[in-house]
Amino acid sequence: MNSVIALDRIRIVLSRTSHPGNIGAAARAMKTMGLGRLYLIEPASFPDPVADARASGAGDVLAHAQVVGSLAEALTGTVLSGAVTARRRERSVPVRGPREAAAELIGFAAHGDVALVFGTETSGLTNDEVALCSMPVSIPANPAFSSLNLGAAVQLLSYELRMAALAPVPPSGPAPEPAAFEEIEGFHRHLEQAMLASGFYDPANPKRLLQRVRRLFGRIRLEKEEVNILRGIIGALERKPD
Amino acid sequence: MNSVIALDRIRIVLSRTSHPGNIGAAARAMKTMGLGRLYLIEPASFPDPVADARASGAGDVLAHAQVVGSLAEALTGTVLSGAVTARRRERSVPVRGPREAAAELIGFAAHGDVALVFGTETSGLTNDEVALCSMPVSIPANPAFSSLNLGAAVQLLSYELRMAALAPVPPSGPAPEPAAFEEIEGFHRHLEQAMLASGFYDPANPKRLLQRVRRLFGRIRLEKEEVNILRGIIGALERKPD
Repeated sequence: MNSVIALDRIRIVLSRTSHPGNIGAAARAMKTMGLGRLYLIEPASFPDPVADARASGAGDVLAHAQVVGSLAEALTGTVLSGAVTARRRERSVPVRGPREAAAELIGFAAHGDVALVFGTETSGLTNDEVALCSMPVSIPANPAFSSLNLGAAVQLLSYELRMAALAPVPPSGPAPEPAAFEEIEGFHRHLEQAMLASGFYDPANPKRLLQRVRRLFGRIRLEKEEVNILRGIIGALERKPD
Repeated sequence: MNSVIALDRIRIVLSRTSHPGNIGAAARAMKTMGLGRLYLIEPASFPDPVADARASGAGDVLAHAQVVGSLAEALTGTVLSGAVTARRRERSVPVRGPREAAAELIGFAAHGDVALVFGTETSGLTNDEVALCSMPVSIPANPAFSSLNLGAAVQLLSYELRMAALAPVPPSGPAPEPAAFEEIEGFHRHLEQAMLASGFYDPANPKRLLQRVRRLFGRIRLEKEEVNILRGIIGALERKPD
């Protein structure tokens, strides 16, 4: 796949950014690496002259930024998404480094849009936001001082995406079509509802069941047809003749 | 060589920086990657409260910064140095990318101090400065907009130095217990039986369904506890109250 096309399919999503200067810095960082599609979830202030000043030549990225109301909205239509997070979460979730994540995202860009999501300056992404993404991505920072500036983090990940896009890709056979974000969410809703109806899932006593199920299916990249098979199985079991 | 020792041997040299905020941003970027030795050649203003504010927790790097009068002074005692430059210079000088340069610098750090040198915000390094260094280093930026913010450039190179110093990556914490072969087979038999009973799977018209399902779950590398969850869901759906 053409590397310019791959870069055009990358959405950089900033969730609830407090300081408009960081939005401008992110836009500049993106443009230096050939990225242009910025999504802003409920920014504290946008547009803002401070963002314009820090963008310094990347005003076009700001001008085309999409302001959205939720992460789900920003991810609709994507086939893979990474949640950039500094915090160690569940020990057992495989966390990607920037290089690994970039290679995976660029690979999936052959099938559609992909996204990298960055949280607020102070608290990062919420657990719910991380759970909506396909994979956590963590920058291997100094454990004693891991707080990268938001613009610097966007710079670093954008650089890795550019490096991955420009790297010669070994040719492989045609890959199956990955399921889109909303298809996977539809499957999770269907499964949750079936678990509820069958009594397996008790919201009063959840024991992290939904998280476990998300983590399980999140480890593979479900294909479109696989989502259909899984939903077919659930549907058939729900309708099971007695 | 110990990776912490290697990082301790790296000097980040900023030549004639105009904006003290960029010195603070560079200090912060360095510290997030475990670097601490900052050299400043004739900074326009240092120390400066704006630098302190942007350093945000990396004040110790600023406090220990060496202010020097020339690049030669900053490089004295080093065994290898890279000049970070966006401009194409003499065509015949081999230019390193950040990754390549970082690997080379970390390799030489076994022998003594090494340095990476960054120029001014507007005009970069002079030809004389580049000539003093062992090698030019160029960030593979967007040709149409290659002007990285100074702090962002320091972040990116510091990251590559840390990656080179830490490579190969040590294995992470204890992994969860994987399901055994017979547990996974038991799950597949259970699922097949449930699909049969519900009418979803028709052996007379199989359409590769079982293969598809095996391929899907085979990609997950199921854990012991996950097999139990999946079988619990199937069991509950089978027993679903009417």
